[in-house]
Amino acid sequence: MAKLHTPLCDLLGTRLPIIQAPMAGGVTTPALVAAASSAGALGSFGFAYTQPEAMQRDVEAVRALTDAPINLNFFVNTQPTPIAPASQTAAIDAVAGYYQALGLPAPAPVRAPYAPDLHAQLSMAEDIRPEVLTFHLGDLPADRIRGLRTLGIKTGGSATCVAEAQHLEALGVDFIVAQGMEAGGHRGTYQRNPYEAMTGTLALTRLIVRAVKIPVVAAGGIMDGSGIAAVLALGAQGAQLGTAFIPCAESGAPRIHKDSLLAAREDTTMVTEKFTGKPARGLANRYMREMQSRNAPQLAFPAQGTLSGPLRAASGKAGNPDFLAMWAGQAAPLSRALSATELVATLEKETLETLDRLAALRR
Amino acid sequence: MAKLHTPLCDLLGTRLPIIQAPMAGGVTTPALVAAASSAGALGSFGFAYTQPEAMQRDVEAVRALTDAPINLNFFVNTQPTPIAPASQTAAIDAVAGYYQALGLPAPAPVRAPYAPDLHAQLSMAEDIRPEVLTFHLGDLPADRIRGLRTLGIKTGGSATCVAEAQHLEALGVDFIVAQGMEAGGHRGTYQRNPYEAMTGTLALTRLIVRAVKIPVVAAGGIMDGSGIAAVLALGAQGAQLGTAFIPCAESGAPRIHKDSLLAAREDTTMVTEKFTGKPARGLANRYMREMQSRNAPQLAFPAQGTLSGPLRAASGKAGNPDFLAMWAGQAAPLSRALSATELVATLEKETLETLDRLAALRR
Repeated sequence: MAKLHTPLCDLLGTRLPIIQAPMAGGVTTPALVAAASSAGALGSFGFAYTQPEAMQRDVEAVRALTDAPINLNFFVNTQPTPIAPASQTAAIDAVAGYYQALGLPAPAPVRAPYAPDLHAQLSMAEDIRPEVLTFHLGDLPADRIRGLRTLGIKTGGSATCVAEAQHLEALGVDFIVAQGMEAGGHRGTYQRNPYEAMTGTLALTRLIVRAVKIPVVAAGGIMDGSGIAAVLALGAQGAQLGTAFIPCAESGAPRIHKDSLLAAREDTTMVTEKFTGKPARGLANRYMREMQSRNAPQLAFPAQGTLSGPLRAASGKAGNPDFLAMWAGQAAPLSRALSATELVATLEKETLETLDRLAALRR
Repeated sequence: MAKLHTPLCDLLGTRLPIIQAPMAGGVTTPALVAAASSAGALGSFGFAYTQPEAMQRDVEAVRALTDAPINLNFFVNTQPTPIAPASQTAAIDAVAGYYQALGLPAPAPVRAPYAPDLHAQLSMAEDIRPEVLTFHLGDLPADRIRGLRTLGIKTGGSATCVAEAQHLEALGVDFIVAQGMEAGGHRGTYQRNPYEAMTGTLALTRLIVRAVKIPVVAAGGIMDGSGIAAVLALGAQGAQLGTAFIPCAESGAPRIHKDSLLAAREDTTMVTEKFTGKPARGLANRYMREMQSRNAPQLAFPAQGTLSGPLRAASGKAGNPDFLAMWAGQAAPLSRALSATELVATLEKETLETLDRLAALRR
């Protein structure tokens, strides 16, 4: 059988130029990462909210199943400065009715820390020595990137515009993830106003490929082999798919999240800050629409995530889509109910078929 | 030499699966349309604001140069109902300072008609009998589409979501233009809130290809052969490029519009209603930013275009980018200073090269 290969495969040590996107909040279970990596893609943990000890346990669980390369992903963000009591009150009042509707005790002021300490996470990552480490929402110091390289860890960072990609290249990362605005989850923008860096995957991938010398991995709206072939045509050396993996049996997403993706027939996603404090794309639901339309007050990232956490958890547990953050890219209607193993095999087959179909257009 | 061919070429009668996008407001001169069509693409007139007699003159000018197929494009829209005096005053006040800054006489209330009569335009089109007729911002009645077909005219309509594409297919059009949110100019959305139909070209093209049986032409963010190959990978049978043709010598865009595209290094476009009353994407400038940030009152489409017309004309004439509607897609930084003839030849060559590059990824 024909093989699909780009230089990125050699860099990452994978059979395929496909990355199962890191997705934080319990979606990227060890079972999902192990299945994606075993099948030839790069399985990735979304460790944004994961403490070092849990990181270690999760990676050990994968290592028991496969020695294929894996990726650990982190959010680069500062903890918000102390939150004024009036801000707490306003943000609590904005969601108190939802707490009540779900039968939860009234929300209390949130307290730092709102997320694990990045340096502790990175130190643990250096001990774990994954083959690949990627980061999102910012940059890492050049000496940290050099240190990771010394340990044999390849690094990649997310860019949503040309300037961010060039900055990451100058810092010494091995590859860029060009995150088009179709992408589900958090916008990785860190240098511009995120609403002014909403460039579509097709345009952004080509702009970044033309602007940097290191390999580019495209992300956003890619759900099948046609999408993978499309970004390879744009000059990307690989594709990163998140939403496509959410419905997989191995993913830890709540059932209602999976079912909502599988039922989608139209792009009904929207970008909201109301779940975490930073803009992120997901399937529009009652919480997003209502909080947006009344321009409800919110806490800074990631404190708002602490405040919305009980709502999301209760909503997911109850199979209620109204208050869950159902992160999704704009091509969500192309979601399929496959295992991660089947999905990766299908993506490979479809990509090769697309390349054959394209070759036939030359005559 | 190898040839690039899809079934769309047979449908349109063109050598290449490439459409030079219709662009209203003087960009698509007879010289541009003739050059694009002669080179093997489908040259298109943006006749949204063109009276029937001028349509006839423009087409005759092309016919004197080539008998290659051409496309006439129209905006489907209703004239606004009579505008209340208070609305006129508010909209006039919002731009009066700009009139003054450009040394123009103070703006007066605008009067209908704000755009040519669509039925008169379509009757003239039936007389002209172009090979192709496309429409934007709405649909046409099924019997009108049948009538055009009887005359041997192929029809295409713009869709920005799956439902719009399926509706157009049911009406009997020959092909769909899937307008991704990267696209410059007016959003073609007519069934949804346009701000909820901002799906990127990569996602939208694949969604629509999967949802309809007729050929799909992708538009939005495509500037070179890599972009064309990418949308062919997604299953589109052709690509429509607008921004790429604006800097051409044959285009009627003001010099400052061309120069601003050629100078772009980052996606700095934004979507605004402040020029015409409907959302359209262009290079951000002073008028767009200021009018947006103070949420300035505006008239309904297309009356706002009548009000902003003198500003745009004076700004373009003065080589001043501040008040000109410099429509542009998000991949504007890939603009090149080529003639339309050179551009089409380059696009063909690049697309074939990309298909060769992709074939080499199989091994």
